[in-house]
Amino acid sequence: MLTIALDAMGGDHAPQAEVEGAVLAARQLGVGVILVGQKEQVLQELRQHEDYQDLPIEIVHASERVTMEDSTQAVRTKADSSLKVATRIVRDGRAAGMVSAGNTGAVMATAKIVQGVIPGVTRPALAGIFPTVKQGHPVVVVDVGANVDCSPRMLAQFAVMGEIYSRVVLRRPKPRVGVLSIGEEEHKGNELTRSVWPLLKTLNLDFIGNVEGRDIYGGEVDVVVCDGFIGNVALKVSEGLVDLTKHLLRESLQASLTGKIGALLARRAFAGFKKRVDYSEYGGAPLLGVRGVCIVGHGRSNAKAIKNAIRIAKEFSEGHVNQRIEDELRLAAFEKIAVKVE
Amino acid sequence: MLTIALDAMGGDHAPQAEVEGAVLAARQLGVGVILVGQKEQVLQELRQHEDYQDLPIEIVHASERVTMEDSTQAVRTKADSSLKVATRIVRDGRAAGMVSAGNTGAVMATAKIVQGVIPGVTRPALAGIFPTVKQGHPVVVVDVGANVDCSPRMLAQFAVMGEIYSRVVLRRPKPRVGVLSIGEEEHKGNELTRSVWPLLKTLNLDFIGNVEGRDIYGGEVDVVVCDGFIGNVALKVSEGLVDLTKHLLRESLQASLTGKIGALLARRAFAGFKKRVDYSEYGGAPLLGVRGVCIVGHGRSNAKAIKNAIRIAKEFSEGHVNQRIEDELRLAAFEKIAVKVE
Repeated sequence: MLTIALDAMGGDHAPQAEVEGAVLAARQLGVGVILVGQKEQVLQELRQHEDYQDLPIEIVHASERVTMEDSTQAVRTKADSSLKVATRIVRDGRAAGMVSAGNTGAVMATAKIVQGVIPGVTRPALAGIFPTVKQGHPVVVVDVGANVDCSPRMLAQFAVMGEIYSRVVLRRPKPRVGVLSIGEEEHKGNELTRSVWPLLKTLNLDFIGNVEGRDIYGGEVDVVVCDGFIGNVALKVSEGLVDLTKHLLRESLQASLTGKIGALLARRAFAGFKKRVDYSEYGGAPLLGVRGVCIVGHGRSNAKAIKNAIRIAKEFSEGHVNQRIEDELRLAAFEKIAVKVE
Repeated sequence: MLTIALDAMGGDHAPQAEVEGAVLAARQLGVGVILVGQKEQVLQELRQHEDYQDLPIEIVHASERVTMEDSTQAVRTKADSSLKVATRIVRDGRAAGMVSAGNTGAVMATAKIVQGVIPGVTRPALAGIFPTVKQGHPVVVVDVGANVDCSPRMLAQFAVMGEIYSRVVLRRPKPRVGVLSIGEEEHKGNELTRSVWPLLKTLNLDFIGNVEGRDIYGGEVDVVVCDGFIGNVALKVSEGLVDLTKHLLRESLQASLTGKIGALLARRAFAGFKKRVDYSEYGGAPLLGVRGVCIVGHGRSNAKAIKNAIRIAKEFSEGHVNQRIEDELRLAAFEKIAVKVE
């Protein structure tokens, strides 16, 4: 049975959400889970679930905990944090991958250092999964925050990794790949977006050129590559706007009696809407390019989001995403292509 | 009476939307409008409005038209375009400002060249106006697409210009100014965001440090500065997500009978919601830093959006925004501050 290590102390609702998510995953997905964290606390949560002793769940103790306030530097000193222990379990081959809803910067740094990087990858990149107007056609945006400064070669690697992820885990048959820019033509954009075109044209993938911010949600592109600064802004702007939308809708609907009755009748429709824009459906953001698997959950993750992150880790591992990335990058041989940087 | 020149051939619905917008503005705002475009076409539209001969509206003929497909280069050859003629009218002092819902790149380039730049401004910047969770507290984001590459000094100028716009036109008493980045601490972000801090700290404005993408909609910051690449991505991502939201809501509500009835009852609430997220309420994006006034409308502008753009041009002019920018930049004297660029 495939086993995933879960940082039980990571998210805002840890360990309650983590333990419940692990129980759901073990029950529904046929996957083993190693809960890593303060043993007593985790066990106490686990006891809330009657069937816990029949499930393939194990606890590994870790005495420390990385907080959302810890700097990436400070993380190095916490040698026995639940995060670090979880990544060591993956490095040692006792789990196929790990999931954490903790401090994103700390999770990325720890996974990179402890689990290591796939041959051919310059730097791992965080992939954000966004909904689109086409139901069941989410889009992958790489990088959404791991690397502020990126070279054209790194962006080309993001394209290769994102394309494989889209194909294998999101089951898009022939993913279309675009560069996030501010105009469609090749000459539009900045130095980085212009420099990456020659590299992407040589790759064995469906490169469709530049796409603009609004195309992310249009369903016509499956993989969008950009540096981690831009990608992070796009991700956070989207989160802010979803919050604003929910707030305005609630406010508008509660302002009148007919609005309130309407909202009541349309309850299911709103649930459907929220489901489509809710990050918890996607479980988390895969950190592409590290050995083993690392899925970064949202800090606000509930049990369902944790379960879905574990599901993604499982599909990632079963689909041999890393082996495919290594093979594709060897074939791509970027170092043989001259990159003109103006 | 204050007069605004309007590019009557600019937007997707020109000249119909432009002419109707001009009529509304002339009727409701006590402002004169010079409609610039194909005289016959414009007059024909104008005749649809019974009272047009009593309104302070004038037509100036221009034989050419810049299309959305024209490159910024091609614009230079169209010497008699409605856009170019409108900017010349401002340059010659026959109108206080101009409005165009045409090709954004062409409008910005033409206004910059023909109208000229305010002393102390390195490059004009496009300011996007976004709604926030706080009703009546829109936020100004500068730059949303005029300048792909920006220096720290340019960003500091954007802060000064955006702060004055927020104070004078949006009537925020003490605007809070932030730098768009990917973490709150000073050291987070990229080279540009780090380099602009020392400049912003010296300015006579309420600098609150870095803000993240999600803060744009939070109502806790009034002016957000960033380079035009990032700002344009933020703008377009937001537009894409608003479209997605409308699509998903419609789809969800129409999927069931109770959803349909709910939507019917909540019709007013939805109208209120759409009004809050609709760009047409804000009329357009001011190009800050050019002499005279230039308001860039959305290509999709309807008559109401045009009217609101004219209203903004009027308030911009009456508030002496440009004189204030010139004075503030003289006081700021950025050239005396050493900028450490790593």
